[in-house]
Amino acid sequence: MPYPDEAVGFQILSSDKCTDFKKQSFKLKPFEDHDVDIKIMACGICSSDIHTITGGWGKQPFPLCVGHEIIGKVIRVGSKVTNVKVGDRVGVGAQVDSCRECRQCKNGNENYCPNYWIDTYGSKWPRSDGVISQGGYSSHIRTPEDFVFPIPEKLETNTTAPMLCAGITVYSPLVRNGCGPGKKVGILGLGGLGHFGVMFAKALGAETWVISRTRAKEAEAKKLGADGFIATAEQGWFKEHRFSFDIIINCANSSKGFPIDDYISMMDVHGRFISVGLPEDGQAQPKAGTAFKNGVLMGSSHLGNRQEVLDMLNLAAEKGIKGWVEEVPINAENLAKCVERMRKGDVRYRFTLTEFEKEFN
Amino acid sequence: MPYPDEAVGFQILSSDKCTDFKKQSFKLKPFEDHDVDIKIMACGICSSDIHTITGGWGKQPFPLCVGHEIIGKVIRVGSKVTNVKVGDRVGVGAQVDSCRECRQCKNGNENYCPNYWIDTYGSKWPRSDGVISQGGYSSHIRTPEDFVFPIPEKLETNTTAPMLCAGITVYSPLVRNGCGPGKKVGILGLGGLGHFGVMFAKALGAETWVISRTRAKEAEAKKLGADGFIATAEQGWFKEHRFSFDIIINCANSSKGFPIDDYISMMDVHGRFISVGLPEDGQAQPKAGTAFKNGVLMGSSHLGNRQEVLDMLNLAAEKGIKGWVEEVPINAENLAKCVERMRKGDVRYRFTLTEFEKEFN
Repeated sequence: MPYPDEAVGFQILSSDKCTDFKKQSFKLKPFEDHDVDIKIMACGICSSDIHTITGGWGKQPFPLCVGHEIIGKVIRVGSKVTNVKVGDRVGVGAQVDSCRECRQCKNGNENYCPNYWIDTYGSKWPRSDGVISQGGYSSHIRTPEDFVFPIPEKLETNTTAPMLCAGITVYSPLVRNGCGPGKKVGILGLGGLGHFGVMFAKALGAETWVISRTRAKEAEAKKLGADGFIATAEQGWFKEHRFSFDIIINCANSSKGFPIDDYISMMDVHGRFISVGLPEDGQAQPKAGTAFKNGVLMGSSHLGNRQEVLDMLNLAAEKGIKGWVEEVPINAENLAKCVERMRKGDVRYRFTLTEFEKEFN
Repeated sequence: MPYPDEAVGFQILSSDKCTDFKKQSFKLKPFEDHDVDIKIMACGICSSDIHTITGGWGKQPFPLCVGHEIIGKVIRVGSKVTNVKVGDRVGVGAQVDSCRECRQCKNGNENYCPNYWIDTYGSKWPRSDGVISQGGYSSHIRTPEDFVFPIPEKLETNTTAPMLCAGITVYSPLVRNGCGPGKKVGILGLGGLGHFGVMFAKALGAETWVISRTRAKEAEAKKLGADGFIATAEQGWFKEHRFSFDIIINCANSSKGFPIDDYISMMDVHGRFISVGLPEDGQAQPKAGTAFKNGVLMGSSHLGNRQEVLDMLNLAAEKGIKGWVEEVPINAENLAKCVERMRKGDVRYRFTLTEFEKEFN
């Protein structure tokens, strides 16, 4: 084991070989006073990982180890760390640093910091001689404490890991747009993001609807807690919901054939239609006249802030929320299979990589 | 004078003769218990009038008399009217009826009523045997009292008329999106809408910027109260404003060559970019990645509710706000000239038609 200078993980060498995971070691950033070293126990597989290694989101700094839904044990802390201690079980999501000094960071919007942003994988660490951050398909990660989250004892490791990205991606826009009792919330697209959307919207007290193409996932939607289900393959599906939704969280991963004007027609006055996916083919756009009728507000959302992650984990612990995950022991062969299945949307609703101890010790 | 069954006004007969105003009489709706008859004193010329008579917004029920920035004197009230009395000076804007019964109407969103909406001109009145509503380029208008607004004594007729549509169109989204002290507000496009946007944003206490193509209108913007001016013809104009605007009200009348991604880059986290124009060429749309960075909320807005109109008029009276208008005696020749000048954007910043008494008595 090369730790503490290096970690071992599964890297992709180029986007045309996006299922060819090479197990190899790579440098960690220099250890600093606020850093936390984590021995990884589990990591979710996020659509971002796939968009990244396939080149769908553009050029990447290969070789690259992806993965940003990480849970592990703290094995070392810098001299100034106060948030966690050695032995704690902690999580790391998709962001691992921001400037802390701008208005946005000081306002609880470090997840929108305009000045300095380090992705969990694929960003260049400062003061590091060019070390590229590497993700959680690996043995260890070194992360500044402000982006390390204690995991409440009640939560299970494997069902919680995907909350660190998928969970917070839907939790933050729900909370920021007023999800709660008396509100009608739609979750558009029932996948990794959407299934957390349903559970969190319901846990926050809203009347929660799933919007999907067919009724294939209706039974599962109800099991997740959905109050209602809309199948857009059915004639006139939007009519009875006209002017009624306060929030729709758009989790769709593509905008092809997206009936955006019909979705918008279901929004109440100044309702929020918030897209959290970043489809490779761009976001669908309504006609000017459609948005005019109800004064809908359309937006995007990016992760969440530290307090929101902590609140989400506490809510999950309190309400017994668990991601619906398929556990997969981490190794090169399984990773290749998972990538193929993710590309086909063949997972309900998330993969969590497990057995890190066995693979990396 | 055919009143009380009919009014006399200037009608357009078809969109290919959109400067050919015919002075003729037309039927008023049947008089009902909540109706108010108004003898018109002044009417602003709104871009909507031009979009309508030129056919830019589609087919219209010609012959049609446009105009929905109306001030006049009450000359008759229905037996159940309580809001105004004979002799009062009142205003009528772009909406003259809604259902009053739906959730939106009961919530102060009658300006987004999904069930029943009567435009000041071009809508079919119910219980009327097919009478089409006719606007303010005319002698009289008959309007349900809920859409008739007493004009505070301090306000002048001719400089206030354009507030009934242009004013409320910018006032409502400013107020609904949190305009006030400590907020940075941009008014994009300095025309009929924008000049009210500057005055109201400033009166509400915000730091107010005008965003225009060149500096040609800078001196006037400052006179209107703007704290700052951005000329988008200048290199890098958006850079120093990155992540700083809380609200931008987009008053532009076209989306051709619209640098929407640069505008969006100036918004603070979850800032509101609200379009109040309805350009014939549709709204410009940002790239998905742009809106993602700051979680901007983009929306449209349509007029305002009754309380907002009353609040706006009171604010105008209190702060001495006046529309910058060019007064034009109403007659067929002047109307034709005004339409031509509106199409070229040649007015600073609004025409108000005057001398109704002379033309119609």
